Amino acid sequence: MAVNGHVSLVGAGPGDPGLLTRRAIARLRAADLVLYDALIDDRILRYARHAQKFFVGKRAGRHAMAQTSIHALMIRAARRGRRVVRLKGGDPFVFGRGGEEALALRQAGVAYDVVPGVTSAVAAPASAGIPVTHRGVSSAFLVVSGHEDEAFASAIAQLQPDGVTVVVLMGLGRSAAIARRLIDRGWPGGTPAAVIVDASNPEQQVWRGTIDQMASDSVVIDSRGPGTIVIGEVVAVGLPEVGIKNSEVGMARIRNSRF
Amino acid sequence: MAVNGHVSLVGAGPGDPGLLTRRAIARLRAADLVLYDALIDDRILRYARHAQKFFVGKRAGRHAMAQTSIHALMIRAARRGRRVVRLKGGDPFVFGRGGEEALALRQAGVAYDVVPGVTSAVAAPASAGIPVTHRGVSSAFLVVSGHEDEAFASAIAQLQPDGVTVVVLMGLGRSAAIARRLIDRGWPGGTPAAVIVDASNPEQQVWRGTIDQMASDSVVIDSRGPGTIVIGEVVAVGLPEVGIKNSEVGMARIRNSRF
Repeated sequence: MAVNGHVSLVGAGPGDPGLLTRRAIARLRAADLVLYDALIDDRILRYARHAQKFFVGKRAGRHAMAQTSIHALMIRAARRGRRVVRLKGGDPFVFGRGGEEALALRQAGVAYDVVPGVTSAVAAPASAGIPVTHRGVSSAFLVVSGHEDEAFASAIAQLQPDGVTVVVLMGLGRSAAIARRLIDRGWPGGTPAAVIVDASNPEQQVWRGTIDQMASDSVVIDSRGPGTIVIGEVVAVGLPEVGIKNSEVGMARIRNSRF
Repeated sequence: MAVNGHVSLVGAGPGDPGLLTRRAIARLRAADLVLYDALIDDRILRYARHAQKFFVGKRAGRHAMAQTSIHALMIRAARRGRRVVRLKGGDPFVFGRGGEEALALRQAGVAYDVVPGVTSAVAAPASAGIPVTHRGVSSAFLVVSGHEDEAFASAIAQLQPDGVTVVVLMGLGRSAAIARRLIDRGWPGGTPAAVIVDASNPEQQVWRGTIDQMASDSVVIDSRGPGTIVIGEVVAVGLPEVGIKNSEVGMARIRNSRF
């Protein structure tokens, strides 16, 4: 059977459409079908002018489409000759299940490519003025999912306390439990920590404190947006929130430019 | 004194111009002055049509411009009203000294912003078909610089052997020493490892083996391009090299698109 369609596994970046890659935009523009997750900005979906768009992520109170159903949908559409974009927040291979989807496509003999994206693991801290590495402060960072307590505990058990920057994705609702896990593992309660929500968007919110404060449930952020937690001395490096909306002076020409 | 110029610390991504972000391109197009590091592709620099371009990185056999001189250059140009782009491979905050530069700009009262980029830590493995996280295989990854033996050894000492994916940037010339460090720390010699050079470019080369093989100097790659080392079970997930040049069938329409 001739297979003329294909699938692109595309990273949409942290949210801000200016952080889409050129290739991501080209794939969206050429797409017949876009399968997207929660938290993909409408301004990003709008690039896919000619495409049908299906939401396949989790909605409040409802389960996401089963992973095997997503595979079946992509494969079927590609076999019908359609250009499919599987659009994911951040990067497809950073907790995006992109590996599983690529394996399923390969096994089905469907052509695919992977378009890496700007990962929130680096861009969300940056947007709050936090460099994940900084000379003399941190020469390594661990990126870990906070979604499941057991997986988080097992990843953290691999790490000596207080050695490297820890970036936790998908842990917003579990920040107190995550901080307690670190303290139980021997991390000093005074270790600086930050939580960034809606990173790179106008709604961005940043909480700063210590893991002791985080453990006592003091992170109060009113948002259903995606959150990134950063733990380590880099949080105290002393840069302000940066980016277009926060820059101090002389940015008018940039502010008025299109991206 | 009025300060009308500004500085953008811009991530250029792993090399492929299609992986530049829209904002990176906009900043390059608007730039009067671009200060760039080694390994930035000419096709990327070409976006800065109206800019003077200064190379401030390392060349074979020569030292890079001192970091303080780069700071002084950026600050002086911004104070003269110039739009400066400080262009770095990958992301400015992943071993890019972006944090130091942002601090220097802030202390000088110069407006700046940070434009995150696609980091090679994720995109180089992806380009070789290696997802840095994969359900049931790895739920965390550590990104570490391989540039200095001591810093590498100290970061690795924070980690239990064989627990999470390790991605080493700037370690290409030291791959045997890096593998030996891991084996000394108790990592099984059979742990899968890969080296990706010139990731995302047509010249991309991939070596695959074990850390035992890597320790015995068997990584033979003839290139002066940037290299990324990945260590862990994700290397054996079983995806082929992906991306435009390696995709199998049906990709003609994508291959012929502009990006």
